[in-house]
Amino acid sequence: MDIEQFRKAGYNAIDRICDYYYNLQSMPVKSSVSPGYLAQHIPTNPPEQGEPWQQILDDYTEHIIPGLTHWQHPSFYGYFPTACSFPGILADLLASSTPNPGFNWSCSPACTELEALMMDWAADLLGLHKEFFNSSNKGGGVIQTTASDSALVAVVAARSRYQRLHPDVLFKDLIIYTTTQTHSLGLKAGLILGIGVRAIEVDAHDKYALRGSTLRKTLEDDAADGKHPFILIATLGTTSSGASDNMPEIRNIAKDYPSLWIHVDAAWAGVVFSCPEYRDKLYHTDINEMATSFCTNFHKWGLVNFDCSAFWVRDRSLLTEALDITPPFLRTKEGDSGQVVDYRNWHLALGRRFRSLKMWFVFRTYGVDGFQGYIRRCIGLNTLFQEKINETSSLLELVTTPSLSLSVIRISPAALSPSSSSSDSTDLSTQDFMNTLNQTFYSRLSARNDIFLTQTILNGAFCIRFSIGAELTTEDDICRAVDTLIEEAKNVVEELRVKNDKTEQSIANGSVSAGV
Amino acid sequence: MDIEQFRKAGYNAIDRICDYYYNLQSMPVKSSVSPGYLAQHIPTNPPEQGEPWQQILDDYTEHIIPGLTHWQHPSFYGYFPTACSFPGILADLLASSTPNPGFNWSCSPACTELEALMMDWAADLLGLHKEFFNSSNKGGGVIQTTASDSALVAVVAARSRYQRLHPDVLFKDLIIYTTTQTHSLGLKAGLILGIGVRAIEVDAHDKYALRGSTLRKTLEDDAADGKHPFILIATLGTTSSGASDNMPEIRNIAKDYPSLWIHVDAAWAGVVFSCPEYRDKLYHTDINEMATSFCTNFHKWGLVNFDCSAFWVRDRSLLTEALDITPPFLRTKEGDSGQVVDYRNWHLALGRRFRSLKMWFVFRTYGVDGFQGYIRRCIGLNTLFQEKINETSSLLELVTTPSLSLSVIRISPAALSPSSSSSDSTDLSTQDFMNTLNQTFYSRLSARNDIFLTQTILNGAFCIRFSIGAELTTEDDICRAVDTLIEEAKNVVEELRVKNDKTEQSIANGSVSAGV
Repeated sequence: MDIEQFRKAGYNAIDRICDYYYNLQSMPVKSSVSPGYLAQHIPTNPPEQGEPWQQILDDYTEHIIPGLTHWQHPSFYGYFPTACSFPGILADLLASSTPNPGFNWSCSPACTELEALMMDWAADLLGLHKEFFNSSNKGGGVIQTTASDSALVAVVAARSRYQRLHPDVLFKDLIIYTTTQTHSLGLKAGLILGIGVRAIEVDAHDKYALRGSTLRKTLEDDAADGKHPFILIATLGTTSSGASDNMPEIRNIAKDYPSLWIHVDAAWAGVVFSCPEYRDKLYHTDINEMATSFCTNFHKWGLVNFDCSAFWVRDRSLLTEALDITPPFLRTKEGDSGQVVDYRNWHLALGRRFRSLKMWFVFRTYGVDGFQGYIRRCIGLNTLFQEKINETSSLLELVTTPSLSLSVIRISPAALSPSSSSSDSTDLSTQDFMNTLNQTFYSRLSARNDIFLTQTILNGAFCIRFSIGAELTTEDDICRAVDTLIEEAKNVVEELRVKNDKTEQSIANGSVSAGV
Repeated sequence: MDIEQFRKAGYNAIDRICDYYYNLQSMPVKSSVSPGYLAQHIPTNPPEQGEPWQQILDDYTEHIIPGLTHWQHPSFYGYFPTACSFPGILADLLASSTPNPGFNWSCSPACTELEALMMDWAADLLGLHKEFFNSSNKGGGVIQTTASDSALVAVVAARSRYQRLHPDVLFKDLIIYTTTQTHSLGLKAGLILGIGVRAIEVDAHDKYALRGSTLRKTLEDDAADGKHPFILIATLGTTSSGASDNMPEIRNIAKDYPSLWIHVDAAWAGVVFSCPEYRDKLYHTDINEMATSFCTNFHKWGLVNFDCSAFWVRDRSLLTEALDITPPFLRTKEGDSGQVVDYRNWHLALGRRFRSLKMWFVFRTYGVDGFQGYIRRCIGLNTLFQEKINETSSLLELVTTPSLSLSVIRISPAALSPSSSSSDSTDLSTQDFMNTLNQTFYSRLSARNDIFLTQTILNGAFCIRFSIGAELTTEDDICRAVDTLIEEAKNVVEELRVKNDKTEQSIANGSVSAGV
C-alpha cells in the first residue's frame, strides 16, 4: 500500500466510521452472534499473497461489525461506559501513524512532555492537590493502561516502600486491604503478587462504605495477629453500586498508620470532580489531603478513547525507587542528567503508546465547559431514570441510593400481589426467591438486542445495574429503557402469577400430592 | 464535533499523515528539542471553551511533530524498530472508533474471536507447534501489551504453578533465571514481584549464549543452596547483540527439571521464523518442543503497529489457574458455560484494546509472501552493512557476529596507527581507553540529526548498535550511514592523533612534567 493508496483507504475508513455513527441508533446494541461465529468466515491460515484493501474493508463491515457490542450505542447501560469521542479517534489516528515505544524521553520528547502537561491539565480539571502535579517536581501523573494497572503499580510501590521501612517483615505477613465492594483489581493484584488480600466487610446500612471504626478494628486485629497491611485500596464509586468509602474517617485513621499507602481508586467516578458542585459530597478535600495515589479512567466516563487510566502519586520517588531499571542500552544523556522524566520507571511495562495526544485533543475540543456539560447531562439522565423507576408503582425498586450516573434496580417484592404469593410452596420473603425472580428478569432483558445491562449482587441480592454514559443517550432513550424494564418485569410477574394459579388449581383438583 | 465535522477533520488527519510520509526522508530523524520545550507552547490549564479543529491540528503540526523522534525514518537504526504500516494505521483507526474494554467474550465477540484466529494465523506463519494454537483448545495465544508484560505474565503463572507443585517452598527461596544478556524485563519482573533474579553469566566466546553446562551447574548449586528456580527466561535475539541462548542444550537440561518453566523471549527475533530458511539455525524445533511459553513482538520487526506482543502458552490452564477472577459483575452466560475464552484471565489487566484487527489487516495486505519479503530485505541490508564495515580497512569493526538485521560495531583498536599510540601516557590495549574513544565516537554520532543509533556494552566493551527495520530504508541509506560512521570515526581518530602529537611535542619541548 503506497501513500496515495493509503490516502484513498483512509478516506474510506473515515467514511465507514461516519456511516457507523449515522446508523448506530438503529442497530441492535448487542451482537447476536454465537460463540465461534467468526471462524466460519475467516480461513485458518494467512493468505500467501496480499489482498486488496476494498476486500478487507468489506470483510470488516460484513463480519466484524455484526460481532461488536456497541458500547457507544444510546441504549448501552452495561458495566461502565467506554469513552469514544471524535477528537479521541483523530488523536489515536495521528499517534498511530508515528508509533514509538516511549520508554524514555528521547524516544520522542513530545510524547513524554505532552503526557506530563496533560496529566497536569487533568489534575487542574479535577482540582487535585498541587503535590500531584508534574509541575510540582515532587509528585506527578502518568497514563496507565487500566485501573487494574494503576492499582497494581500502587501496590508494588507500596510494598517496596513498606519493605524499605520494615526490612524484617516476612513476605507472607504482608497484606493488601480492600473491601468486599472493591473492584476485582484488588484481588487480582494479590494474585499477581502472591500477597494476601483482606476484603473488609462493609454494610448495606452504611451504603457499602468502609467506615473508620471497621478499618481501625481490622488494623488492630491484624497487628495483633502479626499481619502487616501496607496498602488500602479505597474506592470512590464502586462498580457494583457506585458506593464510596468514608474518606474523612479513613483519613482520620490513616494519620496513625503512616506506612499504610492509601490508593484511591476512582476509576469511574473520579471525573466528576471536574464539576465543583460534586466535590464536597464526594470527599474531595479528604482525598486530596490523604491519598498517596489516585486513579481515574478518562477512558470510562471521561470522553478519552480507551485506554487512558490517569494515575497520580504524591511522591514520584516512590514509583522510581520501586521500578527503576536502566540497563546500558536504555541510558541517555538526558536521562542520566536527571533533566527529564523517563516514564518507563513509573509503570510496569517498558514500552508505552502516545496516549496523551487523546487527552489534548479531547480537552481542547470540549473545553472544561463541554466536559462538565457531558458529566452533568449523564447525571441528569440518571435523575430522570430514578424518577421513572419511582413511578412504576413498586413494580421496580432502586436497591440502593443511586450514585451519579449509576442506579441499581430489581423487581420489588412489593410487585408481587397477595394473589401471586398465595401458594404455600413459595416464600416470597426469602432472598432466594427474589433472586430467582430477578435472574429471570435479567435473562429476559439479556435476550433482547435493544438494551444492554449488566448484573451484580448487593448484600446477597441479585440486582441489575443501569449505568449511563454514552454521549448519544437522550431523555427519550431513558424513557424507552424504563418502558422496556417495565414490560419485561410485568412479563416475569405475570408468568409467576400464571404458574401459581396453575399450582392452586392443581391443589384444588387434588392432582398435587407429596413428593410429586 | 458532529459527524460531518469529523469526516472533514478525518480527511485532514489522513492528508496530514500522507504529508508526513512524503516528507519523512527529508526530515531530521531525531528531534532537536531541548527538555521542557513543549511547556513553552502549551498553557498550564485546559481551555474553558472548546477550540476549533483546525487550530488543534495546526498546533499538532507545529509543536508535536518537531518533538518526535522518527522511528519509521530510513535512517533510524536505534534500539529495535517500532513497526508502522499503513494497514496497521487503518486497523487502529477503525478499532479506535468502536472502543470496548474487551475483558470478556460478550464485551464484543468479534474482538475475542478475531484475536484467537489471528494468534493462530501468527502461529501458522511462524510454524509453531500445534499445541500453541488456540484451535488446539489446550494451549493458545493472546496479545499482550509488551514483551515485558508477556514475561511478567509468564513469571506469575510459573510461580503459581511452582507453588501449587511445591506448597512448602518459602517465597524468599524462589528465584527467576535470566542471563546477563537478558533484556531488563527479567530484572523488572523480579522487582515487581519481589522475587530474586539470578542473571547467569554468559561468555563472549559462546557468543553470549547460555550453555547447558552452565545452566546445569547453576541449577545444582542453587538446589544445594536451598533456592528454587521456577522459570528460565531464555532469549532468542538479545537486545545488546542479537545473541540466542543455546536452546538444544537448554532443552536437554530442562528434561530433568519438569517444574522449571521455560519462557522463550523472542521479542525482536521471533518473527524471523516466518522465513523457513532461518528456522534450523535458530533452534525452531527445540523451542517448539521445549518452550512452556513463547513471545515475539509483531510491533517490533513484524509490521503491526505498536502495541502487539504475541504471547503463546502450551497449556492455557496455567494462565487461568494463576489469573482467573470472576466477580458477579463480570459473569456472563457464555463465560459460565465454558464455551468461550475470556481473555482477561490470560493477562494482568482487566481491559484490553481490539488489537487483533491490526494483525488481520497487516497479514492480509502483505500476505505471507510480502511479510517474508520485508524480513529478508532487512537481513539483506544488514549483510550489505557488514560488507561495508569490513571494507573500512579496520577503522571500524564488528564486535560480535551480526545477527539477522542487527550489527554491533566500534572503532577498532587497529584503527589507531602506531603514531597515534606512541604517547607513554596512553595504553591502547586497555579497554578503558577504547571505551572512552568509542564513547566520544557515539557522542559525535548522537549530536547529529541525520542518523539515530543506540549504545550498549558487550563484555565490558562500549559499542554501538546498528539495527535495521524501517520499511523505507534502502541500500543507499545503508551506504550513506556507513559513510557517516566512517566520517565521524576518522574525526575521532584524527583528534586523538593531534592530541598525541601535541603531547609528544610538549614532551620534546620539556613542558610536560610529572604531576602536570
